[in-house]
Amino acid sequence: MDMEWMRLHLVKTCKLDASALTLVGVSGGADSLSLWGIMVEAGFQTAAVHVRHGLRPEAEAEAERVVDWGRKWGVRVMVEDADVRGTAASQHLSVEEAARKLRYQALFGQAQRLGAQAVAVGHTADDQVETVLMHLLRGAGMAGLRGMAARMTAHEWESELPLVRPLLGVWRAETEAWCQARGLEPVQDASNADTTYFRNRLRHELLPYLAEYNPQIKERLWRTAAVLAADYALVEERVQHAWEDCLIRAEPGWVRLRADGLRAAPLGVQRGIIRRAVGWLRPGLRDFDFSQVEQAVGLIQQDGETGGLELTGGLEMRLRYGEVQFIEPERRDVRRNYPQMEAGSEVVLSVPGEVPLGGGWILAAAAVEEVPQNLGGDPWEAWLDLEQVRLPLRVRTGRPGERFCPFGMGGHSQKLSDFWVNQRVPREARAGWPLVCSADEIAWIPGGRTAEFCRVSETTRRWVHLRLSRNPAEG
Amino acid sequence: MDMEWMRLHLVKTCKLDASALTLVGVSGGADSLSLWGIMVEAGFQTAAVHVRHGLRPEAEAEAERVVDWGRKWGVRVMVEDADVRGTAASQHLSVEEAARKLRYQALFGQAQRLGAQAVAVGHTADDQVETVLMHLLRGAGMAGLRGMAARMTAHEWESELPLVRPLLGVWRAETEAWCQARGLEPVQDASNADTTYFRNRLRHELLPYLAEYNPQIKERLWRTAAVLAADYALVEERVQHAWEDCLIRAEPGWVRLRADGLRAAPLGVQRGIIRRAVGWLRPGLRDFDFSQVEQAVGLIQQDGETGGLELTGGLEMRLRYGEVQFIEPERRDVRRNYPQMEAGSEVVLSVPGEVPLGGGWILAAAAVEEVPQNLGGDPWEAWLDLEQVRLPLRVRTGRPGERFCPFGMGGHSQKLSDFWVNQRVPREARAGWPLVCSADEIAWIPGGRTAEFCRVSETTRRWVHLRLSRNPAEG
Repeated sequence: MDMEWMRLHLVKTCKLDASALTLVGVSGGADSLSLWGIMVEAGFQTAAVHVRHGLRPEAEAEAERVVDWGRKWGVRVMVEDADVRGTAASQHLSVEEAARKLRYQALFGQAQRLGAQAVAVGHTADDQVETVLMHLLRGAGMAGLRGMAARMTAHEWESELPLVRPLLGVWRAETEAWCQARGLEPVQDASNADTTYFRNRLRHELLPYLAEYNPQIKERLWRTAAVLAADYALVEERVQHAWEDCLIRAEPGWVRLRADGLRAAPLGVQRGIIRRAVGWLRPGLRDFDFSQVEQAVGLIQQDGETGGLELTGGLEMRLRYGEVQFIEPERRDVRRNYPQMEAGSEVVLSVPGEVPLGGGWILAAAAVEEVPQNLGGDPWEAWLDLEQVRLPLRVRTGRPGERFCPFGMGGHSQKLSDFWVNQRVPREARAGWPLVCSADEIAWIPGGRTAEFCRVSETTRRWVHLRLSRNPAEG
Repeated sequence: MDMEWMRLHLVKTCKLDASALTLVGVSGGADSLSLWGIMVEAGFQTAAVHVRHGLRPEAEAEAERVVDWGRKWGVRVMVEDADVRGTAASQHLSVEEAARKLRYQALFGQAQRLGAQAVAVGHTADDQVETVLMHLLRGAGMAGLRGMAARMTAHEWESELPLVRPLLGVWRAETEAWCQARGLEPVQDASNADTTYFRNRLRHELLPYLAEYNPQIKERLWRTAAVLAADYALVEERVQHAWEDCLIRAEPGWVRLRADGLRAAPLGVQRGIIRRAVGWLRPGLRDFDFSQVEQAVGLIQQDGETGGLELTGGLEMRLRYGEVQFIEPERRDVRRNYPQMEAGSEVVLSVPGEVPLGGGWILAAAAVEEVPQNLGGDPWEAWLDLEQVRLPLRVRTGRPGERFCPFGMGGHSQKLSDFWVNQRVPREARAGWPLVCSADEIAWIPGGRTAEFCRVSETTRRWVHLRLSRNPAEG
């Protein structure tokens, strides 16, 4: 192990400041011991946390060894006890899962208390390969096959502190050699405390078997992860841009995306956005099934707008008003999902001004001198020619047999009832749907078109900007 | 197998026109026989090519079976003989490699002769999984892990005809069931003629072993490939954009990219561009080693401009004049790589006009009324204020002790010799380097800056556009 390379790696890749405190998780095995020792030798300020799982009789002696090294190096060591069996039982976790959870909770808890810049753990290149192989056997995409990252923020542990893994490019045998060269005798079994039975089987059976096909299998899998990690970043960047382009709104229980934008995106982007929308509503969800993603992709492609799909955990995905919506079951009722006011009522809308319609829905109007280049897109937003409408505007619900002259139909009128059908407005939402009127004439149907008589044209000098929005805290 | 789905798949995904001829490669095994039969049943116009490798005694009988099916279905069958052993010996290929090469050559040769729209082959979902696994064991990136594509253009076979694989979503057992349901008895061994020993080991040993870890392993690997294929398309699109942004020029034996653009790109893009540059110069190269890519990435990051790296097959990668260059060994000599004219000579350059400088280098001048928004970028191109220079321009080499006032240095002059050093112009290229002069004053050093006195400013009304280029066919 080249100490100069490692120092650079700690600073440049793991982004650690040598003079700020880093909390190191130390089981006492060769991996974590060498990580800790390397950081101490390279002049990094550290403190160690040893979590005593109390699962094996030798645990007490192991904790003492870690304390001894700390004393020798003049570094603070904290020993924490974890009730693994109790947690496993009460939270319905396997012993391995419970141990992992308690360990990271202890690490990040101490890191926060001490104001550490990061938590460092001793995962090696071998752990990386085993992780990649586990994801591969499960059938993961790039997010899994890229393996672990040298520095990770926004991870699953409560804290906002980064988790760093400086040894992902170092093989386990190298950490053992490093300890031996320093006369350090690591704890023997502790490194395996981190591994589930499945991981042990991969390490001791599957990897040696795969080596019969390619003796370099571990190096090759490690490289694959390294290549995929950088490529995954490109995919994520692309999906993020598309997400920003397509997102109308994400609020608790409800994500709304522009269907046309999503439909025009490449398959990989569509899949990424679907995963992201579901992840937004279900942050804990780990495995969102491939076949559900494919069904969701199929739904986006549908020309009609009546489609719907039941997703994992009762989430619904559906097409409405040129939107792809992902929605919680309890958000499906009409007042929350569609703009509604009391049927038969009428309110005055000044320009500028805003009126609450009930259920958290608010209709706002403003006079503007400039409009964005690209009108349209959001169906809950409209621009009218200010000089063609009578102020104040009036907002009311529709009347039986009422007609409307939508922009773009050459002045021909259409029955409101036909409009509801064409736009697939659910029957139960029609009576309360708000209509923006000039005097008594419909000027804009929110979610639909503006009227011909007040549409913006090249001669428009002043505009009315209308926007319907919903405050999710209400209603 | 759902015939309606398959017909749609053939049209939409494989992009086949039912009324245009498709050439089907038919070994006679269940895979290729069912592909052929499905296409015939779905009303696609086909012709079959059976390649007789002559490696097994039963080959004659197998060919007759294919001819019989063709007669029964009223479809033309062509039987071609391939000298596999002879080709393997003379071209130093394994028997499997030689058979594969001759088979595709026969298919695409016949397809061209008959004016077919595509060649179709019967690779199944099982073949896909085996391919992914082979790539994985070799340590491939996404390009390998995504597996085969349902439709592929620009493949390794000479022709520009697409290669389609309609059965990649169909398992081998399904093709066998399909044949059985139609009373067709496929050839038994022929499907294995396609497989190398290594592939057979994967099929019969490794995959069953992996199924002990996950009984769904084949489906999972298939899905992984499907996910990665779409994600790979996103990565390729991103790399393509960056390639277009960074490319100064790609000519036989020499690829030149803007170093600053490449340096600012994400790691995945840098790797992709390096692979693409090497692929441009070495189209046949299959495995460009990961560690070489990483060294190349390291070279790009270097601040200095003197670095160089020997790549696969004698290619050189180097930093010069703010460029990252990939170059064939024989292109390294000065006259080919740098603009050169006879030292001490002088030629007249009219505007408009052009002069050859020798070695294939040509300097061209034009008076322009409009300039692109973004000047700069290509160091071999310059714009001067036409009213500040004396015409015709003169092109000559530098003189000992000569000075130059580069734009942007506040009118301060610099020694030409210092300029050579700063710009890292190789010593042997300095004496012959062409300088564009107004009367006797240096107006532009190609590859470097324009002079202060003739730089374009807000008051410039007419410009001289200068461009130095090289005709690779000469010199």
